[in-house]
Amino acid sequence: MSTASLSVVLVRARNPLNVGAAARAMSNFGVSDLRLVGEYLQPLEAARSAIDAAPVLAAAQTFGNVAEAVADCSLVYGTTALGERDLQHPVDLLRDAAPRVRAAQDRVALLFGSEKTGLSNDELSYCHRLLTIPMARGGVSMNLGQAVAVCLYELHREAPAQRTLPEAPASAKGEDLQRFESLLRETLAAAEYDRRFPGNMGANEMRELVRRLALTSADTTVWMGMLRQVLWKLRQPSRSRE
Amino acid sequence: MSTASLSVVLVRARNPLNVGAAARAMSNFGVSDLRLVGEYLQPLEAARSAIDAAPVLAAAQTFGNVAEAVADCSLVYGTTALGERDLQHPVDLLRDAAPRVRAAQDRVALLFGSEKTGLSNDELSYCHRLLTIPMARGGVSMNLGQAVAVCLYELHREAPAQRTLPEAPASAKGEDLQRFESLLRETLAAAEYDRRFPGNMGANEMRELVRRLALTSADTTVWMGMLRQVLWKLRQPSRSRE
Repeated sequence: MSTASLSVVLVRARNPLNVGAAARAMSNFGVSDLRLVGEYLQPLEAARSAIDAAPVLAAAQTFGNVAEAVADCSLVYGTTALGERDLQHPVDLLRDAAPRVRAAQDRVALLFGSEKTGLSNDELSYCHRLLTIPMARGGVSMNLGQAVAVCLYELHREAPAQRTLPEAPASAKGEDLQRFESLLRETLAAAEYDRRFPGNMGANEMRELVRRLALTSADTTVWMGMLRQVLWKLRQPSRSRE
Repeated sequence: MSTASLSVVLVRARNPLNVGAAARAMSNFGVSDLRLVGEYLQPLEAARSAIDAAPVLAAAQTFGNVAEAVADCSLVYGTTALGERDLQHPVDLLRDAAPRVRAAQDRVALLFGSEKTGLSNDELSYCHRLLTIPMARGGVSMNLGQAVAVCLYELHREAPAQRTLPEAPASAKGEDLQRFESLLRETLAAAEYDRRFPGNMGANEMRELVRRLALTSADTTVWMGMLRQVLWKLRQPSRSRE
């Protein structure tokens, strides 16, 4: 399944802000097919102003019931907070539902129930399976827009990155660290640190101390510049006269 | 790190609905330490009515700047949409940031910038690393409440389930399926299906057809009851007289 064959079906959503938020999350994760089930078209009208959601909302379709909304879908997943109801369906954690959704060959529908009541038993009967977002306490409902965002994030989680991350700065190489270490040792000696704290100047201690800094190559150059300046100042004849 | 030592830091959040949504997501995923940075305390006051967010909001702390907000944190992760800015930090995909956050021994802060501008360069300078939620297009911002929900979902994703999923119904055993298959064959023979479509009645074809149904044990009993009734009706003497 590609995101092009995924439909988000909001059943009896009442709050326009939630419909707008769902559409914005769809836009973020590259899903474009929004379907609204219910008599109330007002939320759709009111939601059209949501940021980044405009094309998804403009293309949203409305249906009188769930049967019509999922007529062209070969896998229908209902979302549930695992409340007190006795569920007859197989229930997957979201992370386990994602591979099933991705493996589907035809259109997949993700059904989200109304803010107050979730999906009714009648609406659930159109679902092949249910999925649940694991939370700290069971039976608690998520905000509708957030639930849509979390589900689409999970489905998109393994997708190849559309945008390459900035390259991590190069770490300092061993020879850079050796140079840094010698300069540090020289500087500390010039400051007579080695007379006061000889134990801290042991070769192993110093080497480990420097490695724990996890210096980048560029930063090592900067630090060495500072050390050289300090060392130069420490060796100024004026200092010995103080 | 447990969720008890995770802090969500909202920097200059302006929309009370977003603050409320962030608090609700925190409540959903068991995170309780909310910190707000900025001059504007009005969002906090206005957000206190968000569903399920009350205890989190009641305990929220306010700070004048990022430095104070993260003073007790040993790992500070900033969130970014990877815009046009030239970032100096190492950037992780959310899924790769999660294990680092979980591995931290002390308090971890997740920083979210304002709705309009994200985190400023000054605010970013307090971060050890950045994380980004991979989206269909780069550089697009998510809704603040949804971004918090997605991040906390990812951190909670591998947590042991707090609530056991309903047990999947037992699948029909081989012997159940054999009985079902014999009864089906008997019924089809009584209906003279085997004379019209003899190819479909081959032993292998029939066995595979039955296995593809993925019947549960309980449902097999129901279907067999139907078949027995049909078979009985087919064998009524009245039928032969029609």
